[in-house]
Amino acid sequence: MIGTIAAILTTLSFLPQAYQVIKTKDTSGISLGMYTMFVLGVFLWIIHGWNVQDYNLIGANAITFVFAIIILSYKIKYK
Amino acid sequence: MIGTIAAILTTLSFLPQAYQVIKTKDTSGISLGMYTMFVLGVFLWIIHGWNVQDYNLIGANAITFVFAIIILSYKIKYK
Repeated sequence: MIGTIAAILTTLSFLPQAYQVIKTKDTSGISLGMYTMFVLGVFLWIIHGWNVQDYNLIGANAITFVFAIIILSYKIKYK
Repeated sequence: MIGTIAAILTTLSFLPQAYQVIKTKDTSGISLGMYTMFVLGVFLWIIHGWNVQDYNLIGANAITFVFAIIILSYKIKYK
């Protein structure tokens, strides 16, 4: 139960950040290094989830991946 | 192996972001909502890790927690 709430919070936390960069195009404080590492890491979590057939892990990271790739794209475009 | 690399990348990705906000104090593009949800979520992951006695989960989230709380503190102080 606590694990489920934790997963929902850490997964959906990237939604307000993605929304904010889309709306404001302000990415000045956002670290390119962070989102480069993070997008790659989340992608590897999806592969790992596939390897161990953990669909919760795949699903949560797939959602995070969408938000994180949006943030990274805006960071690259509007730096 | 892929899971280990994934864990290292997603955990350490917050280091360059924490370093950047400490160095520049520029948090204008960073979402307060994101880090509020994220810090709370990571804290619940630590509790969950304790409940299931998963020390890898506790350790990874403890490291992330330190970086995330620094970023959140700077966001609140230098908004």
